[in-house]
Amino acid sequence: MNGAETLLRTLLNNNVEVCFANPGTSEMQFVAALDRHPAMRGVLCLFEGVATGAADGYARMTGRPAATLLHLGPGLANGLANLHNARRARTPVVNIVGDHARSHKQLDSPLESDIDGAAATVSSWIRRPTTAADIGPDTAAAVAAALSAGVPDDGDASRTGTSGAVSTLIVAADLSWGEGAPPAPHLPARPPRIVPRPHVDATAALVAGPEPVALLIDGAGLGERGLRAAARIQKATGTAVFCPTWPARVRRGAGVPAIEPLGYRAEAVAQQLAGVKHLILVGAREPVASFAYPGRPGILTPPGTRVHRFVPDAGFDVVEALTELADRVAPGPLAPLPALDAVRPTMNEPLRTENWAHVVGALLPREAIVVDESITEGMDTLVPATAHSAPHDVLGLTGLAIGQGIPVAAGAAIACPERPVVCLQADGSALYTLSGLWTQAREKLNVTTVLLNNRAYAILRAELERVGGSPAGPAANALLDLGRPDIDFTALATGMGVPATRATSTTELADQFSTALATPGPHLIEAILRPA
Amino acid sequence: MNGAETLLRTLLNNNVEVCFANPGTSEMQFVAALDRHPAMRGVLCLFEGVATGAADGYARMTGRPAATLLHLGPGLANGLANLHNARRARTPVVNIVGDHARSHKQLDSPLESDIDGAAATVSSWIRRPTTAADIGPDTAAAVAAALSAGVPDDGDASRTGTSGAVSTLIVAADLSWGEGAPPAPHLPARPPRIVPRPHVDATAALVAGPEPVALLIDGAGLGERGLRAAARIQKATGTAVFCPTWPARVRRGAGVPAIEPLGYRAEAVAQQLAGVKHLILVGAREPVASFAYPGRPGILTPPGTRVHRFVPDAGFDVVEALTELADRVAPGPLAPLPALDAVRPTMNEPLRTENWAHVVGALLPREAIVVDESITEGMDTLVPATAHSAPHDVLGLTGLAIGQGIPVAAGAAIACPERPVVCLQADGSALYTLSGLWTQAREKLNVTTVLLNNRAYAILRAELERVGGSPAGPAANALLDLGRPDIDFTALATGMGVPATRATSTTELADQFSTALATPGPHLIEAILRPA
Repeated sequence: MNGAETLLRTLLNNNVEVCFANPGTSEMQFVAALDRHPAMRGVLCLFEGVATGAADGYARMTGRPAATLLHLGPGLANGLANLHNARRARTPVVNIVGDHARSHKQLDSPLESDIDGAAATVSSWIRRPTTAADIGPDTAAAVAAALSAGVPDDGDASRTGTSGAVSTLIVAADLSWGEGAPPAPHLPARPPRIVPRPHVDATAALVAGPEPVALLIDGAGLGERGLRAAARIQKATGTAVFCPTWPARVRRGAGVPAIEPLGYRAEAVAQQLAGVKHLILVGAREPVASFAYPGRPGILTPPGTRVHRFVPDAGFDVVEALTELADRVAPGPLAPLPALDAVRPTMNEPLRTENWAHVVGALLPREAIVVDESITEGMDTLVPATAHSAPHDVLGLTGLAIGQGIPVAAGAAIACPERPVVCLQADGSALYTLSGLWTQAREKLNVTTVLLNNRAYAILRAELERVGGSPAGPAANALLDLGRPDIDFTALATGMGVPATRATSTTELADQFSTALATPGPHLIEAILRPA
Repeated sequence: MNGAETLLRTLLNNNVEVCFANPGTSEMQFVAALDRHPAMRGVLCLFEGVATGAADGYARMTGRPAATLLHLGPGLANGLANLHNARRARTPVVNIVGDHARSHKQLDSPLESDIDGAAATVSSWIRRPTTAADIGPDTAAAVAAALSAGVPDDGDASRTGTSGAVSTLIVAADLSWGEGAPPAPHLPARPPRIVPRPHVDATAALVAGPEPVALLIDGAGLGERGLRAAARIQKATGTAVFCPTWPARVRRGAGVPAIEPLGYRAEAVAQQLAGVKHLILVGAREPVASFAYPGRPGILTPPGTRVHRFVPDAGFDVVEALTELADRVAPGPLAPLPALDAVRPTMNEPLRTENWAHVVGALLPREAIVVDESITEGMDTLVPATAHSAPHDVLGLTGLAIGQGIPVAAGAAIACPERPVVCLQADGSALYTLSGLWTQAREKLNVTTVLLNNRAYAILRAELERVGGSPAGPAANALLDLGRPDIDFTALATGMGVPATRATSTTELADQFSTALATPGPHLIEAILRPA
């Protein structure tokens, strides 16, 4: 057994069973070991950003980390943007980064670079085994560290959806090819860090009191149990309930108590929180603007609103705390929610921002996993259009690093092969990690991508106005426009091996979406959206 | 005038006239300023790795840096792999990375990350202006630093092709939108660092002496003047002359003295250097293997060969030193080289590794810029097939971070609009930065890409054997194989707006290559290569 096999077997002992890989020479021993250990599923990704995004999507759905297999510093660099999103999602991810043999590093050969420095920008935990005997324990520690943000390693996704971290294990090639020590056994994640017990009494008094209160919930609180507790509180006390704009994972749809996301724009949040005297954070951070704008505040809590940190953003069980609070102010179960029909789309209309989501919402299959990188096209339309759809989970763009959608969809589909995945993908962002479509085809994943083609970096057009730049002239507009030439996503998907069609009307989208969902394997529908 | 305009005008004052941009909110002031300063050409790239690779290609051809415009940490991260290649090529590049407003950074908003840490992995120079008055001087210093590796800022590409560095200027959004100070004037690059004058006498004695000698030349020494000096030395003394496998830029073709690249594989280099008693480095580094292999040396200089550092790899004029050495051992001009016909391809053969380069070599237009990311398909075939082609320049994969070809081709075409660009692009690598094809289409660049489709990570198949893994089984093979499904690069290019055709025989490749070269704008030819 060589070191790479020690590593692989230790991953398996620690319930890491999928490896999203873009290997190079320094990782060939690990690749070779896959043949001897079919329990580890190696998934080829044709760009490292696909591998890291897929690992994020996989772990958001299972609560367990996948491994990535990355080649040296440039390979890790290509995966950093989606690791940034994973870090913001609190997803457990274990990166295995191959390095040159130690005798070789001093030679400064062409691919040599600062792996540790790149890893430090996204990782909570970084280690390099230094002897064969280290490989097993360090690998087990990497997995435990990825799961150590206060959540048990029991695979209960409702508890663990968004409470991990990125670990990076850097393995020199000579350790991989050298004689390995025995693999390490399962190492439990570290127990939750000790945090003060939530002040349920004080919070219950606030919530039940006379002043307007809002809850801002994130993390595991956005699963069905947390939402039901929040709904009980809301119903009994009139407390408003919000979640972040694009949480890592949130449950939605018919029978699930609705939760209102804070708007992407500061002005929207100001309206939502107007008059709120107490903002109670439940596994969430205080809301801040994505970007600063001249003369506007970055913190979105209105002046005069007091912020209460009821449950810290990691370290205590959000669901338990919410339930305890609900039991205090609203004992008894939640009354059944009224059954409402999903919004019905109007047929035979040209597709535009205002109507595409109605089609998706009406046809969304039960237990769909919705990967939402719709950005401008979905930020005002998706939540109302899917509020009464069949129950589903939504995975959001946590770190705002674009190019997450296609890979996260692949990872989620591998995590949950029995569930349909619907990827709502903006056009400009899709190009960052387009080859994730090929991985969807290779693995025959049931992913239906609705590619929202508005032929622009639409969000940047809005931003250009907001930062107070002069009116955009032709040179500025040229940098925000995805036309000249128009990108043909139907051709791009076909080139990647994913069957694709183009829709320009609500009827076409409905027909193609239904057909795609009914046909095994990945599909892409290019929805051509009319300018507003 | 706001700070972004101060920055932009300072770039122009310092002869930076092209900006490869993938902007976001923090860079919108710079985007807006482009309308007021048409002397700065903004080129939209749909992925940051395209922007950084294009800047590399531009500077390899002009000797002057382009700017990149990148959005926060994840934007920089996406550009790191091609900045790694630029660093290895000693290319001058000036990154402008927008950061959050300083009041906003403490809020840890979703896109916040460690920009400085990521920049440090590739940059020789990093600075953040702290006041409006800093913006101009810091911008001028960034350009000067990018050009400061010992080469004058006179735009003489024959002298400056490969002797720069990566500078990164990180600009907070509030400085961009705030009132700007006057732009800074031109700041000359720092003078060459003082290095010992080359020991011409001692080197001449070695070269003219009885023991076998080889020169290893890199950097500006691979331009026509350097190669002619080397050829004089070679002819007069029998000295062998080599260059690195994939140099940043090398002149080749009819009338240009040939130089032999060291092989990619250590075994090949061992043969090339067998019996050499003195290896003289001329602007080059001692040859090392790209990767370590069990039980094999990493340094490729054979035992018994003495290494002499005649000209350090930066800091002294390589061409001047070579010329002085030639004048000492071989006075007088180089005799005219015999005119030889380019290798003639055999028509009507199925395309394979052994014949595609003959087609390209026979039809290569005069003064072509050949961007070589052919990797496995070209490493043994391209140099012999193009030795007697029309004279041309070849830009190589310096840092082995794949995904360089398409962007470097775009940048080279913008640098030299009067020259045809031929991009020889391996299939797996093309997927890393595929959207560079769209930039070629948007900018109407005369780039002909020959996409070498062998449907595999072919180099990794070889590497798997070399590292001594067990024979590859199905799981390992699945990670090295680009089939199932086959990727259709003709469809992918079409989707990006680049006309594309598919060639399966030498005759088809010849026809399509000629047509593409004769037709303005970018084209892609997908060469389907038969397995060996």
